[in-house]
Amino acid sequence: MDCIFCKIVEGTIPSKKVFENEHVVAFHDIQPAAPVHVLIIPKKHIAAMNDVAEEDLPLIAEIHRAALQMARELDVAESGYRLVNNCGRDSGQIVFHLHYHLLGGEKLGALNAK
Amino acid sequence: MDCIFCKIVEGTIPSKKVFENEHVVAFHDIQPAAPVHVLIIPKKHIAAMNDVAEEDLPLIAEIHRAALQMARELDVAESGYRLVNNCGRDSGQIVFHLHYHLLGGEKLGALNAK
Repeated sequence: MDCIFCKIVEGTIPSKKVFENEHVVAFHDIQPAAPVHVLIIPKKHIAAMNDVAEEDLPLIAEIHRAALQMARELDVAESGYRLVNNCGRDSGQIVFHLHYHLLGGEKLGALNAK
Repeated sequence: MDCIFCKIVEGTIPSKKVFENEHVVAFHDIQPAAPVHVLIIPKKHIAAMNDVAEEDLPLIAEIHRAALQMARELDVAESGYRLVNNCGRDSGQIVFHLHYHLLGGEKLGALNAK
């Protein structure tokens, strides 16, 4: 599978991991859009939110459990943070392996600024 | 409870609902930031992501099940969409009842534009 995030999961591409368990990996975005910008992904290859099947919904809960832990550990739980999933062309999704952005560490911009 | 979203759940404040089941309600944002801008909320009052307890994680999955259905029904599944949760001060969260924004219908802006 020629997926950069699967390779990060496998460890064949390096990343600055901040979390890993049986189901989920989180690592720092290489082009951060905020002082804290972590990507949280399932180890299972799912291309995008549209491809999340009924049996994958518990993985979404796992991703959020990890996000809550990351927010605390990266010290943005109190100051505030944004969780974002981009799906498909209009959203700006670049890597087609499901991922949530966790953004924080500063006053964040608008939901959909141009 | 003096929560505007609880009142929308109860129906004592009007809203343009697009989805409702046992656990979740979705309705059009009154100040849309994109051609499609729906808010998806749990019926249970949870103030923010920080307050999502272990037993609430299945509700997060329910919200995503609803989001996937809304994306299809509002015709943005193919063109693309963004799911956003804002938590706390730095994020711009305004209403303290957990909600996900579903945005689509145009090419969306940056994750954190200023």
